[in-house]
Amino acid sequence: MTTSRSIGLVTAQKAVFDTPITLSSGVTLPRYELVYETYGTLNAARSNAILVCHALSGNHHLAGRYREDDKNPGWWDNMIGPGKPIDTDRFFVVGVNNLGGCHGSTGPSSIDPDTGQPYGSRFPLVLVRDWVETQARLADLLGIDCFAAVIGGSLGGMQALRWTITYPERVRHALVIASAPKLTAQNIAFNDVARQAILTDPDFYGGDYYQHGTVPRRGLRLARMLGHITYLSDDGMGEKFGRLLRSGEYKYGFDVEFEIESYLRYQGDKFSDYFDANTYLLMTKALDYFDPARHYDGDLVRALAATRAGFLVVSFTSDWRFSPARSREIVKALLDARKRVSYAEIESKHGHDAFLMEDEAYQAVMRAYLSNIANEVHA
Amino acid sequence: MTTSRSIGLVTAQKAVFDTPITLSSGVTLPRYELVYETYGTLNAARSNAILVCHALSGNHHLAGRYREDDKNPGWWDNMIGPGKPIDTDRFFVVGVNNLGGCHGSTGPSSIDPDTGQPYGSRFPLVLVRDWVETQARLADLLGIDCFAAVIGGSLGGMQALRWTITYPERVRHALVIASAPKLTAQNIAFNDVARQAILTDPDFYGGDYYQHGTVPRRGLRLARMLGHITYLSDDGMGEKFGRLLRSGEYKYGFDVEFEIESYLRYQGDKFSDYFDANTYLLMTKALDYFDPARHYDGDLVRALAATRAGFLVVSFTSDWRFSPARSREIVKALLDARKRVSYAEIESKHGHDAFLMEDEAYQAVMRAYLSNIANEVHA
Repeated sequence: MTTSRSIGLVTAQKAVFDTPITLSSGVTLPRYELVYETYGTLNAARSNAILVCHALSGNHHLAGRYREDDKNPGWWDNMIGPGKPIDTDRFFVVGVNNLGGCHGSTGPSSIDPDTGQPYGSRFPLVLVRDWVETQARLADLLGIDCFAAVIGGSLGGMQALRWTITYPERVRHALVIASAPKLTAQNIAFNDVARQAILTDPDFYGGDYYQHGTVPRRGLRLARMLGHITYLSDDGMGEKFGRLLRSGEYKYGFDVEFEIESYLRYQGDKFSDYFDANTYLLMTKALDYFDPARHYDGDLVRALAATRAGFLVVSFTSDWRFSPARSREIVKALLDARKRVSYAEIESKHGHDAFLMEDEAYQAVMRAYLSNIANEVHA
Repeated sequence: MTTSRSIGLVTAQKAVFDTPITLSSGVTLPRYELVYETYGTLNAARSNAILVCHALSGNHHLAGRYREDDKNPGWWDNMIGPGKPIDTDRFFVVGVNNLGGCHGSTGPSSIDPDTGQPYGSRFPLVLVRDWVETQARLADLLGIDCFAAVIGGSLGGMQALRWTITYPERVRHALVIASAPKLTAQNIAFNDVARQAILTDPDFYGGDYYQHGTVPRRGLRLARMLGHITYLSDDGMGEKFGRLLRSGEYKYGFDVEFEIESYLRYQGDKFSDYFDANTYLLMTKALDYFDPARHYDGDLVRALAATRAGFLVVSFTSDWRFSPARSREIVKALLDARKRVSYAEIESKHGHDAFLMEDEAYQAVMRAYLSNIANEVHA
């Protein structure tokens, strides 16, 4: 048994793309930058690369630390590293901050070269397929013709699924975790409340708050609080917080009364300190718009017909944002399209957040599937 | 078979209470008013009265219309009227706007006689038990010693349950519909996001927006949009709206894209036109605080030990705000306390809102239970 360890210190890199890209919305960006990180070594055959796609609030910093005294490692440090399920001793792992992000890649807070001001409201909406396009361009730059695997949870899983459709020849395996083939009306509804919180914040200024020296913190805070409720399960929340009172008795006021209020407000405050509101809007719209079957009369089987990847689909029992039933829709469509698919439904009380958390059964499934991929690569 | 019909024109009345009331929070109101409506006739024995308690955004206007050209009847017009399940030919039905409300009873928008200004932030929080106390005083005024039934859905069901504990001798039956014995952490979390939306609206002014000539519309709108998601079921929402696009194609902007967005924004706008934000805050806190077992070491069986009412508990299969499991907790506690209880779990796709809607199976259960009560009364 290999002992897993942290990958240690990592550094981000930046790629500049001067070839214009026309996005699904019809808008053309003449130039953009993507920040990314890589871990491990690309083999001579360039066949051991894995792309990890991030979800709504994630970024390119998947694992490791920037400085020895960094308190927080990358967001998937428990999954990626030497001896870990996504084993950097065997794979060359790539993480990218998506176009439209707020962690270094070109996004709404970047300077628009045409005006010398931040893009703000002029930054175009970006769809999952646009991200796949930009990620493919980064792969070109890195000399990766075909990924051994594209992996993602939630919105990241949608990117992995989209990769298999847009570039069947460039992805050998797709790991689609805690995801869905498209949002339901309820999913869209939650997103829209979050967006309305931001859009109606008086500090939003139609998206051009950078020039006004404001940040729509109130709206972003509410959006994150609401998001958090949907990331956790009712039971998990009950187990962790229940009706625990901050002070042991009712105070009859609007300050924190129950511990769950304290937790949510803290999460909202923290998030609104570092995340860009326009990026949040853009990410939720990418979620809403994702619907790969749309151009196939709503038939996911037909949408997946040309894919050539092997699939691992993973869901978590208490996830009600993207429930196991949603993952099973993907599995069913893949089976009907006669594709290779493995499916794991992991028992968990952590709701949607489970895809980010360390869990023995989950890691065992990921380890086994990825170990087979590694053996293919090195065969 | 009786033909049911609308109760027709109704009028609201007002009762003035000059006896001070000390609320659970410790605050004393020297004087308050309650608006109420009654339908039907109180019999000579004064034994046929039914109290219907309202939920978060409800009021005293249960049924009928104020004018012939009223577009909307009272909120439970499908349930209350001549020949309807709550049959006004047999019962004397009372509806009250709860203390702290915004439809005529004393509440945060009422004038504080001490200052000549609206109470605003000085209006005390009100608990379910306080409402029961004020409702009992209204019953005294109307000459009702004992209600044939106290009925309510959601927060209204909590009042019905509380009635049986506070006044075991004053309520012969309690109909507790789509309710819960206390909120979960997730329930509280949703309420707190809604409250934070209002509390952080710059137009809220700490609750004293009346004097500033503003209304925290943004916050109240968000609160209502969020509330609406929890009132509907995922499936029901999917069936009604799905991913239907307003214009048939993606517009790549933040205007309404999907029909569900249009629906929610409309509901939020409408609500923020007529409902008072302070009342909304107060109502959600009453929900959070409700926990009749709290003074019995969390033991609901002990809390219910002294009750003498017969109970009908009703839940709806797709209600995830107060799921059938929550109703079954009440039923289990009543059974363990050796009380008379009937339980109906109604198949419905309408989520929490089902308790307000016309449904054959639901109405049949209500009609049968209430018909038995009427027979008792008239025996």
